[in-house]
Amino acid sequence: MTATNLPLSGARLWDSLMQMARFGALPGGGCNRQALTDEDAEARGQLIAWGEAIGLQVTVDRLGSIRLLRPGRDPSRRPVAIGSHLDTVPTGGKFDGVYGVLAGLEILRALHEAGAATEAPLLLINWTNEEGARFSPAMIASEASMGLREEAAVLATPERAGPATLGGELARLGFAGTADPADLRGIAAYFETHIEQGPVLETLGKPIGIVTHALGARTFDVVVTGKDGHTGAPMDGRADALAAAAALILAAERLAKDSAGEAIASVTRIAITPDARGNIASGARLACSTRHRTQAGLDALSDALRAEAAAICAARPGIGIALEEVWAYPQTDFAPALYERLEAAAARRGLGSHRMPTAIGHDAIHVARALPAALMFIPCHGGLSHNEAESITPDWAEAGLLVLADAVLETAGLIR
Amino acid sequence: MTATNLPLSGARLWDSLMQMARFGALPGGGCNRQALTDEDAEARGQLIAWGEAIGLQVTVDRLGSIRLLRPGRDPSRRPVAIGSHLDTVPTGGKFDGVYGVLAGLEILRALHEAGAATEAPLLLINWTNEEGARFSPAMIASEASMGLREEAAVLATPERAGPATLGGELARLGFAGTADPADLRGIAAYFETHIEQGPVLETLGKPIGIVTHALGARTFDVVVTGKDGHTGAPMDGRADALAAAAALILAAERLAKDSAGEAIASVTRIAITPDARGNIASGARLACSTRHRTQAGLDALSDALRAEAAAICAARPGIGIALEEVWAYPQTDFAPALYERLEAAAARRGLGSHRMPTAIGHDAIHVARALPAALMFIPCHGGLSHNEAESITPDWAEAGLLVLADAVLETAGLIR
Repeated sequence: MTATNLPLSGARLWDSLMQMARFGALPGGGCNRQALTDEDAEARGQLIAWGEAIGLQVTVDRLGSIRLLRPGRDPSRRPVAIGSHLDTVPTGGKFDGVYGVLAGLEILRALHEAGAATEAPLLLINWTNEEGARFSPAMIASEASMGLREEAAVLATPERAGPATLGGELARLGFAGTADPADLRGIAAYFETHIEQGPVLETLGKPIGIVTHALGARTFDVVVTGKDGHTGAPMDGRADALAAAAALILAAERLAKDSAGEAIASVTRIAITPDARGNIASGARLACSTRHRTQAGLDALSDALRAEAAAICAARPGIGIALEEVWAYPQTDFAPALYERLEAAAARRGLGSHRMPTAIGHDAIHVARALPAALMFIPCHGGLSHNEAESITPDWAEAGLLVLADAVLETAGLIR
Repeated sequence: MTATNLPLSGARLWDSLMQMARFGALPGGGCNRQALTDEDAEARGQLIAWGEAIGLQVTVDRLGSIRLLRPGRDPSRRPVAIGSHLDTVPTGGKFDGVYGVLAGLEILRALHEAGAATEAPLLLINWTNEEGARFSPAMIASEASMGLREEAAVLATPERAGPATLGGELARLGFAGTADPADLRGIAAYFETHIEQGPVLETLGKPIGIVTHALGARTFDVVVTGKDGHTGAPMDGRADALAAAAALILAAERLAKDSAGEAIASVTRIAITPDARGNIASGARLACSTRHRTQAGLDALSDALRAEAAAICAARPGIGIALEEVWAYPQTDFAPALYERLEAAAARRGLGSHRMPTAIGHDAIHVARALPAALMFIPCHGGLSHNEAESITPDWAEAGLLVLADAVLETAGLIR
């Protein structure tokens, strides 16, 4: 038997996507299913129920990541994993993250239905808190599982607005498991598939994106300090923290725009004090993320941003700017052996594919920092994601399913 | 009897200032006594108790402004008024506003103690919501009393964070009076004294500031619209509302800085959506205030700001910027007959005075738009106001009291 003969069903996958979208459904057609909310717990429960229905062994680790295991025939083989996430941003869509989990589930369902076995075990993973919308930063469960972040710090992560912690919510919802997150470093190979979150594949008319590497990323919290004052005060002698913050926002944008497409920089959050109509801002807090095609470029971009901050301070007496790196990953290559397998599978299926980097974070990047991993994209309409209007076609969903199945089953060794 | 013989007591005034500072006292020495909070109600109750103790007639109008009347001997004379406000910003000091009310009270106490009469009635006014910290915009009770704003709109003003309205809070606290706010247009002359909220008088070593005019002011709400997107998206094709807002913040600052001291412009509030680390801002909302020495200059400054907004939109496809004027007053002259009387009184008392404009809003400005009004300043340390560390000396407080008393009693006709 080959993967081509398996009863893989694009229709069943689509139906499961629509069923999963009921959890945290929004009026506009999207989902608000932030990590470890009641809605996320419902979605997790549904995934577990579907897994148990086909005999998968369910384990939850101390970071709440769910593992659904289908044993292989060879007890000496390490598992081949498929992973992604069920959580969404506050106004997310039906596909981001969920598609990767349910495409993996559909492969396991087809194997079950066919009574087929693999040499290596297959493991489906739902990572906790990929989005980082409720518990910042993002992707901390996969990062900690790979030994790249402290487990205790992840559990202590406070929610963005409210008194809860990630660990407290795991306990409340019954997802504080006992398995060691570090177990996952024993995976033989990891596959993740995701919607592109950009317009490239749709524009090229190719349903399969082969991700060769991830742009390195650095995210900063920026604290600008100035001096409070009345809006009627003279312009001279002011230390306006909001004006200084504005200068830094434009400097970051300019550095990226001047990079000939190599760099990306975005300031995406701002809060000022006292934030009162009659008061010049005494402080501002920003979130700034930077990305670059190369690691050397990323380092230079950070240096340039710090130099811009110093120049703003020099030009504006009384202003201080501190940049604290809160989250980063290096330029990361995916495993050529795995992505060439995806590429070859697409060719055999007669599906167009395109090699591309990802500028967006995925759990697969942290996994790839520790072990062989691959990331594959399918198109989305208009490059729109993290948005209620996010959409894909059933054909794209099926194309990704078939290519993923072929590569995973080739890696795990499909037997009958 | 002249004002010079009245038992005006700087010590009693100081003591009352310290007593009033207990209401809404903050650990750092300042006050949080925002309009129509329980703390403001306590301060209002204290003022009424002090007024009743010296036989003043208490009236509250429909906008909650408190009037303490001391009848004159001549029933045909219209009242001479002294006014200011007891409310503070969230981290305010002990003197801003309060000083003007309690200096007026001290004049009435001295008259009472001396058994002295005036030809015209004397009226002490505590205006509701001068600061605008809880109910925006500021100074709306004086503005409406002078017929320059709709009374119903003032009563419907929502609090900044919460479900209350100004009218609802007046009712809750028992300060929804029955007197017609328009009565106050019948005042013969109005005097207000206030700390300077700037460093000029302290630097000059002069205890009395004679305010000749108010710079015209215009305040805008600015709405910037862009397009949401992921921080990993390419720089081309973005419509980043925060970057566009930053460009407008710097443009407003540049317009004012290039005016050779004639203009002031400040962006003081900002809120963006979705304000998430991974999302380019799709929207930004700013508060921007502009001031100019001349009315023509203020008009030109507004036009220039709108032109800058249009240029930013032209340079950034997908960005829209709308400026809505939410609050304004024209360049306003105070009454020379009244401020020359203050100036002469200072000279007779041997106290240095300095003519100056105000770039900061005061209830006296709205009163001056309708009837003869004067505004006088005393120094504050380091130009610091709207701040817990705001401070003045007892000598400055007494100097202002004496000059104010002389001018008010000359205007009202002191008899014995």
